[in-house]
Amino acid sequence: MIYLDNNATTIMYEEVFQILQKYSTEIYSNPNSIHEFGVKADVAMEEARFKIAKIMGVMPYEIYFTSGATESINWAIKGTALSRKKIGKHILSSKVEHSATINTLSYLNNIGFDIEYVKTDDFGKVDIEDLESKIRNDTILVTFMFANNEIGTINPIKEIQEIIKRKNEKTLFHVDAVQAVGKVDFRLKDYKCDMASFSAHKFHGPKGIGFLYKKESTLIHPLITGGTQERGQRGGTQNVPSIAAMAKALELSIKELYEMDRIKTIRDELAKDLEDLGANIVTPLNNSTPNTISAFFEGLRGDVIVNALSDEDIYISTSAACSSKGTSGSRVLKELGYSNKAAEGMVRISLSSLTTGDEVQRFINILKNVLEFLRF
Amino acid sequence: MIYLDNNATTIMYEEVFQILQKYSTEIYSNPNSIHEFGVKADVAMEEARFKIAKIMGVMPYEIYFTSGATESINWAIKGTALSRKKIGKHILSSKVEHSATINTLSYLNNIGFDIEYVKTDDFGKVDIEDLESKIRNDTILVTFMFANNEIGTINPIKEIQEIIKRKNEKTLFHVDAVQAVGKVDFRLKDYKCDMASFSAHKFHGPKGIGFLYKKESTLIHPLITGGTQERGQRGGTQNVPSIAAMAKALELSIKELYEMDRIKTIRDELAKDLEDLGANIVTPLNNSTPNTISAFFEGLRGDVIVNALSDEDIYISTSAACSSKGTSGSRVLKELGYSNKAAEGMVRISLSSLTTGDEVQRFINILKNVLEFLRF
Repeated sequence: MIYLDNNATTIMYEEVFQILQKYSTEIYSNPNSIHEFGVKADVAMEEARFKIAKIMGVMPYEIYFTSGATESINWAIKGTALSRKKIGKHILSSKVEHSATINTLSYLNNIGFDIEYVKTDDFGKVDIEDLESKIRNDTILVTFMFANNEIGTINPIKEIQEIIKRKNEKTLFHVDAVQAVGKVDFRLKDYKCDMASFSAHKFHGPKGIGFLYKKESTLIHPLITGGTQERGQRGGTQNVPSIAAMAKALELSIKELYEMDRIKTIRDELAKDLEDLGANIVTPLNNSTPNTISAFFEGLRGDVIVNALSDEDIYISTSAACSSKGTSGSRVLKELGYSNKAAEGMVRISLSSLTTGDEVQRFINILKNVLEFLRF
Repeated sequence: MIYLDNNATTIMYEEVFQILQKYSTEIYSNPNSIHEFGVKADVAMEEARFKIAKIMGVMPYEIYFTSGATESINWAIKGTALSRKKIGKHILSSKVEHSATINTLSYLNNIGFDIEYVKTDDFGKVDIEDLESKIRNDTILVTFMFANNEIGTINPIKEIQEIIKRKNEKTLFHVDAVQAVGKVDFRLKDYKCDMASFSAHKFHGPKGIGFLYKKESTLIHPLITGGTQERGQRGGTQNVPSIAAMAKALELSIKELYEMDRIKTIRDELAKDLEDLGANIVTPLNNSTPNTISAFFEGLRGDVIVNALSDEDIYISTSAACSSKGTSGSRVLKELGYSNKAAEGMVRISLSSLTTGDEVQRFINILKNVLEFLRF
């Protein structure tokens, strides 16, 4: 198998799985139990929180464990909307966000919030001037992704942050950082955003676990109410095995970051090889996550290419896994003004620190055969 | 170690962990990916949904995977409230519900919903006549637990269902079934409720996974919006390893149900032994989950007993793990009219199908010594 769909999900690091195993089978207690067996799980959980906070350069009590990025994004957006609706109902975002953001904003729009979309350039990068002109007194929230999941484009988060706070210091800024971790050196201390969402399975951790960073001063409504867990802000027995595993995955992802220079070299060479095979490259190579390349081939459907490669035990993607079923082509490409044919033709190849040059070479060789067959 | 805190969480069955391992390390793909590797995960997930539905006697498309019971309960209650607020804002429940329900209702109360609590008997069982008198034209939801997590009392869910539908057929009925599975033969087909919440880690499955049963005809707002997962009703990459493991845990829990006769016998003998040691039994032995017994000892704090036993590597609980930290005594006992001293004295012993008579005998012997020491 050659797995080149790492923006959809990643394999767990071996060490990460060992931690998952330890807290699933040995220290399986409820971290909220007051007995010693419960305390052991609680200690592991708080050590994980401390480790994540330390890596990110924030305080442990600013990290809230959730079931993943979609929950985190829902919490950040709906929590802000519901807690600040008396101050304002204006929210800014972009049309190339992940469906977790797009559909949450659409939900809020249906219940009376005023959602406005900031222009982006041809690669989906936020237009700073347009953003500046759209921030109003009643803008309660701005939410953007750090890097686009479908094509890899990186947003100028620091600039965005500065503009928001200059125009309206009360506007909260949420960053969907899902595609950042393990690909670029993303530390929260370098970005003064108010909230950020993360998902472990995108950086070689388990599925079903993530976290929301929420600045100490950021007070918003909880999404999931219940017990006193997570300082009363997120009810439910914490998933200690996955939390401890996530912290280890984050640690290893940061350790392995040096691999991204190698991956970028492979990715950039792959771009040339793809162009030689007739591809139109969509990803901006000089401003994107180094593991991602998206492209389309004139006259060929992306899903046909994906399926033909799948028969060869090679796995790439059409668009985002979260919206690839039952839809027709890349939503992001359509928003960027590409034709429906281009959008339906898009394929995404996403590498990880574990991808070898040999795998990519074998992929390109087989792709060549597949394209010849399909173009017959 | 003698683990008698199974209402807080349970150890995973060995077979369940093996499935978790398989889908964590081998078939780790995103079930929404269209390639063959993704399809394998999707098939495993849909087989799990089918298995759960079959066991429960409902349709697979009535099962929605969530991060656990707290999310399911939030979804059922808030989803109903937000989607029906134009019809009515009246919701009925009881004061002895789990904090996931109590605090969600309290949240709704703060934003303008009319929450009313039905009387219960001395053991926390819903008073049917009081319920009947309180159902109104604008009652949009009734939510009760199947069995109380702290003391084990079982509610007459079928009678409750009949009364609700007789008084107002439009009122939705949600059952918190968390403490039912693996303890009694709870099948949704026997209860015509509209929604029910479940958590895998209470029946020897993984933490961080659960499901919401939602009758096909029950249309409520989603809680977590995003991708097209779960028929568009719950966004986020599904946690396939935990979903597949949960289905196996449910299957095994049902298979092991015959053990509950043995466990009930052990529990009832334990009640006598506890009374011999001076305990006041709180749990109604003839109407409770057979694994649960709660009691208090005059003049002794529950947390002191729990900690003393913890030093002996024996784990029991004071009240619910989800509310046991930073609070003083059992909330349920206080609601039932017990004194603060009794509430602070409460201990809960919760067995599982894996508990042996020998373990319980060793527990009671050590408890005897502990009580002698503490009463010195």
